[in-house]
Amino acid sequence: MLVEVTCPVNIALLKYWGKGDDLNIYPSTSSISLTLNQAHVGTKTAMFTKNDLKESLFKLNGKIMRFPGRLLDVLIVAQLRSRLDGRLVPSPFLCVESENNFPTSAGLASSASGTAAFAFALGTMYGLDGDYTSLSRRGSGSSCRSLLGGFVQWSNNHDDHTSVQQLFPASYWPELRVLICVTNENPKPVGSTDAMLCCVKTSYLFRNGRVPSSKIHEKEIISALKDRDFSALAEVTMRESNQLHALCLDTWPPCIYLNELSHSIMDFVHSINNYFMKNVVAYTFDAGPNAFLLTESQNISVVLKYLVECFGYTVEADSFVNNADKITIKCMNSNKYLKITGISYDLSDEPLDQNLLKILPSISGGIRHLISTEVGSGPQLISFIH
Amino acid sequence: MLVEVTCPVNIALLKYWGKGDDLNIYPSTSSISLTLNQAHVGTKTAMFTKNDLKESLFKLNGKIMRFPGRLLDVLIVAQLRSRLDGRLVPSPFLCVESENNFPTSAGLASSASGTAAFAFALGTMYGLDGDYTSLSRRGSGSSCRSLLGGFVQWSNNHDDHTSVQQLFPASYWPELRVLICVTNENPKPVGSTDAMLCCVKTSYLFRNGRVPSSKIHEKEIISALKDRDFSALAEVTMRESNQLHALCLDTWPPCIYLNELSHSIMDFVHSINNYFMKNVVAYTFDAGPNAFLLTESQNISVVLKYLVECFGYTVEADSFVNNADKITIKCMNSNKYLKITGISYDLSDEPLDQNLLKILPSISGGIRHLISTEVGSGPQLISFIH
Repeated sequence: MLVEVTCPVNIALLKYWGKGDDLNIYPSTSSISLTLNQAHVGTKTAMFTKNDLKESLFKLNGKIMRFPGRLLDVLIVAQLRSRLDGRLVPSPFLCVESENNFPTSAGLASSASGTAAFAFALGTMYGLDGDYTSLSRRGSGSSCRSLLGGFVQWSNNHDDHTSVQQLFPASYWPELRVLICVTNENPKPVGSTDAMLCCVKTSYLFRNGRVPSSKIHEKEIISALKDRDFSALAEVTMRESNQLHALCLDTWPPCIYLNELSHSIMDFVHSINNYFMKNVVAYTFDAGPNAFLLTESQNISVVLKYLVECFGYTVEADSFVNNADKITIKCMNSNKYLKITGISYDLSDEPLDQNLLKILPSISGGIRHLISTEVGSGPQLISFIH
Repeated sequence: MLVEVTCPVNIALLKYWGKGDDLNIYPSTSSISLTLNQAHVGTKTAMFTKNDLKESLFKLNGKIMRFPGRLLDVLIVAQLRSRLDGRLVPSPFLCVESENNFPTSAGLASSASGTAAFAFALGTMYGLDGDYTSLSRRGSGSSCRSLLGGFVQWSNNHDDHTSVQQLFPASYWPELRVLICVTNENPKPVGSTDAMLCCVKTSYLFRNGRVPSSKIHEKEIISALKDRDFSALAEVTMRESNQLHALCLDTWPPCIYLNELSHSIMDFVHSINNYFMKNVVAYTFDAGPNAFLLTESQNISVVLKYLVECFGYTVEADSFVNNADKITIKCMNSNKYLKITGISYDLSDEPLDQNLLKILPSISGGIRHLISTEVGSGPQLISFIH
């Protein structure tokens, strides 16, 4: 048997932080995410099994690795479920090959799309009932949201079959754009699973404040999505991101994920929004320093131009000018560059406001790579051979 | 009439953040502070009044300024109280001269010692009843703690006469040392009065989590003080500081006071404590980027040596070597310097651990000046001439 699938990355607007039930992996609070276009950021996973396999094998991005423990958990649950359904497991062993189409340094929690792809392929192979979210959740909580396209809610309703729901399809808000700022290749100071556990155990603000806060943010996000009100969505998204990092700071010992560049990008976003007197761009950070920026297509040109000017790098020679994956911004007699992949844009010729530039933060070369993407659909089955 | 006083700076371990009553200036939660030795960090204020004065005059650090609005509030309350007591106010106008013995760039909330000194001098001049804390609080909430020496609690018991109490005198813990790291001269992005107001109004974590958290921290601080348990005091002090900045981050728009150097100093403290397998040093930050480090006399030598190595500056020439106010640390073939005022120390000759140095953060020249001090006594009346 051979199954081949692709699965998208998702980015949480309402954050998943803290388990309410460690055994069943129920979250403390609901979370809401955007599923990204998997042509730009996603995982492709192929798996096959045959009766004479003697062990499971795992290859990630072309490199043979030990089979990850969290995927083994998913595998065992799938096999148990298959037996409970009265079917024989074809073989307990698998060959799995998984590949991400984005830099692993993007801080994109590749475990989410990878685990979701694994659960989707496995569920398909074992002929399970179509509910792959409870399977995927075993490997990585937030991965369950990658099993649906568009805008996805993972509730803490403690029901394995209904906890993950699509709120709106990918086509609902076609103007929405996501810019993934790739800045940092260093491993996280604390992994998010450990940080969550530690936060639940030690943060008094989490204990008393997180549930009521997240309920307010949940309502606000759903209402902003219903109205396709970007400015409202931007505010609650940024507040939710700030609250996550506030809770990390209130954890003991404190978990600090944001760095100087993260804070500069936050500062950049607030200054741009103040200048336009409405929210035209928003940031959100997961448990890492890399920023995910949200904006709409009608504002992408101006956001990109200021972003390149503030965080792009300068190259003396013309070496990059003819390279298709570099955006060039000319302004203030400076040539600033940024590598951009995904959706490409024709930037307007409108000059940048020199007074705004003066108050914007600037870290030359701070952003190394931008992935420009949008809301996308759920996992895709590429091939299935019995 | 002429009154001359000195008044100390205080540093909050349990933070005052948020008013529960804007009109009467009652805090949302209790706070606990250390009063510092006013010989090292304090304000000297002289005031006189005579019947033919036509306006109030104010001189700060030798510079004539507009009479600060918050001091005018204090003045009006003092005059009202004097009249309620059936006495005539000698003159409604005052000449005030105030001087801080520390750099205004120290992030030391000089308004606290300055306002306390003003209230103390005024209360003395007007012959009020000795309760100057309710007077001082009018000008700046946290200043009321500077009117007592040692370890001081400002309760939210809504009683003007008993809300400020000394928990322990200055002599209670003579080994305790405070190192004030002067790093930043830039004005704050948001003043603390505005930031507090905004936090109370917008932070859901503040609304639901601050009161229960601060009550736990209050008990822990009092218990650590009772036992003179430095390690316990260090942990709760750092947690309290982190919570303050977590609440600032959860405010909308977010208030970011900590900068890269602040985070490096936090990182430095955690690494040093991990290395010694107990808390030998603690940080606390108010609404600003400057660190206040707490340690005990038996550990000051080692803390200072690593601090100078990580954040001191290098000078090529011998220009500073003979300067008494510079500490010189030699290590790893490098000469690092730091200006230090206040209490001075003989540093031990013990070499620094190269393996620890490798994992410590380092920002050469990050700290420009250290003020080394200890717990001190309350305000002093220097002269009083009728």
